[in-house]
Amino acid sequence: MKNANCKILDCTVRDGGLVNNWDFSVDFVRELYYGLSEAGVEYMEVGYKNSPKLLKGADAGPWRFLDEAFLREVIPNKTDTKLSALVDIGRVDENDILPREQSMLDLIRVACYIKDVDKAIELVRKFNSLGYETSINIMALSHVIETDLSEALQEIAASPVDVVYIVDSYGSLDSKDISYLTTKFSRLLPEKTLGIHTHNNMQLAFSNTIAGIESGVTFLDSSVFGMGRAAGNCPTELLVSYLKNPRYEVRPLLGIIEKHMIKMREKWEWGYIIPYMITGLLNEHPRTAMALRSSADSDKYVEYYDRLTTPETAFGAGAAKSE
Amino acid sequence: MKNANCKILDCTVRDGGLVNNWDFSVDFVRELYYGLSEAGVEYMEVGYKNSPKLLKGADAGPWRFLDEAFLREVIPNKTDTKLSALVDIGRVDENDILPREQSMLDLIRVACYIKDVDKAIELVRKFNSLGYETSINIMALSHVIETDLSEALQEIAASPVDVVYIVDSYGSLDSKDISYLTTKFSRLLPEKTLGIHTHNNMQLAFSNTIAGIESGVTFLDSSVFGMGRAAGNCPTELLVSYLKNPRYEVRPLLGIIEKHMIKMREKWEWGYIIPYMITGLLNEHPRTAMALRSSADSDKYVEYYDRLTTPETAFGAGAAKSE
Repeated sequence: MKNANCKILDCTVRDGGLVNNWDFSVDFVRELYYGLSEAGVEYMEVGYKNSPKLLKGADAGPWRFLDEAFLREVIPNKTDTKLSALVDIGRVDENDILPREQSMLDLIRVACYIKDVDKAIELVRKFNSLGYETSINIMALSHVIETDLSEALQEIAASPVDVVYIVDSYGSLDSKDISYLTTKFSRLLPEKTLGIHTHNNMQLAFSNTIAGIESGVTFLDSSVFGMGRAAGNCPTELLVSYLKNPRYEVRPLLGIIEKHMIKMREKWEWGYIIPYMITGLLNEHPRTAMALRSSADSDKYVEYYDRLTTPETAFGAGAAKSE
Repeated sequence: MKNANCKILDCTVRDGGLVNNWDFSVDFVRELYYGLSEAGVEYMEVGYKNSPKLLKGADAGPWRFLDEAFLREVIPNKTDTKLSALVDIGRVDENDILPREQSMLDLIRVACYIKDVDKAIELVRKFNSLGYETSINIMALSHVIETDLSEALQEIAASPVDVVYIVDSYGSLDSKDISYLTTKFSRLLPEKTLGIHTHNNMQLAFSNTIAGIESGVTFLDSSVFGMGRAAGNCPTELLVSYLKNPRYEVRPLLGIIEKHMIKMREKWEWGYIIPYMITGLLNEHPRTAMALRSSADSDKYVEYYDRLTTPETAFGAGAAKSE
């Protein structure tokens, strides 16, 4: 059996929430959890554990600001599938986090840009001392210069973090890029587990995840039917089918897709859509493409492409706020 | 510049015709031709050159039974973009084929199953003697045993064919399979150019094409917005963007997609759709999935999966008739 060490972390609710403002029903999230459990998926990321005091978003669904009491109602009986939550630098209130033995959560993942790695490590130390598994997810790696990355990885190597993620926020990397990054991460982080989080702007999310596996990555992010911001993520149903581990079953995921995802895809948009392809190939954050898709010009691809590729009129790239 | 030897063959009309029964307007095909020319695409496959005498399909559009006089009206001024047509064993009347200097076509491709390679070679000799570039496209390679393949490739090596295609008819191969096949083809066909034709059942059409390029394949099939049978093909717009050849421009393809493909996708279905994913992962022809999608049970994925994976109720796999 190959890939026996791989673990899948399904982030449908967390990354998919960036598509529908976390408008998932309790029933859906519960069924997803038990479906993922049946499918053998090791982790489910059930949302963000940011603080509503530190972040606007009063209109967002409860998965954006996870609450322990609420989570207990959603998932009355935990299975072998562990729960994870993502936090953003500057948006999480450490005092919100219970010790792990009192929490529904097992893993807390810290998303950060390269400049905030020190802050991420501080948070990791805190969560680690509370008993959680931890990860650092370095976003937007395709915009990071080599010297900054080497320095950051050296600091991370000395931290107590368990998993370090390669995050292709813009869906602009190919398998050679992933192999290169994985090799570099492995060299500088010999004691750490590596993870990968991909986006599907150029239809490479699944194959880049495979490229990661081939180079030694073992924590694999995915979402059911690929539901995630903009072009979406590596589909969980493909990963479960590809990994030759007898614990995995695709059938329960087909049930979830049949019952929920088709309707959701009609209501909300994600996937291979040309403006997202364009930001992927230009190595840019998809925010301008998301704005375009919400406008009356949603299908004016040539005009949009011209705007992005003409220096005088290009949108500023800026820093993204979510992976 | 990497990949300078690669050539793209767009088969939107030919493979896409399997989706819409070749119901493309003359205006669309003409605009596609000039769009592909502007984009720098080297070949456009404008349809099948099968004979209506040998094949039912009177209701199909003209791109299924190409006629030279008609083609001259469609494309009054040929550019650098060459034209190709596909023929099937037993369905082409050799007497229909004009000498190349009287024809609009430059390349005739022969699609065959492994058992018909001898017949394919006969046709290739005929087309070659008429002055055409030729290819043999061995379909359904994922169902071919090694000894048959080696024998077939040895025969092809001694034929006058120019290009030999690796065809992943069922969209069930991954990049390691492609690398393996390419290495084998290269070894047994040292004098031939290699081509690749992929399907996107598991979202691997583009990445498998890249894997082919990395192993020395230079003729690359694709279709605009991926339009092709069932899950569709490697998208031309991605290939043009990926290959670092200054002759390629993605912008004209964005125009074609904006003007035509979005509406066509609303009318006809292709792409990553769960029943096609299922046939891909089970390494089967998509015909049962296509039948399912035309039925009232189009979204009953679990039932369909159970039917395909329960030995007593599985559909027969049989041999496919088109790649």
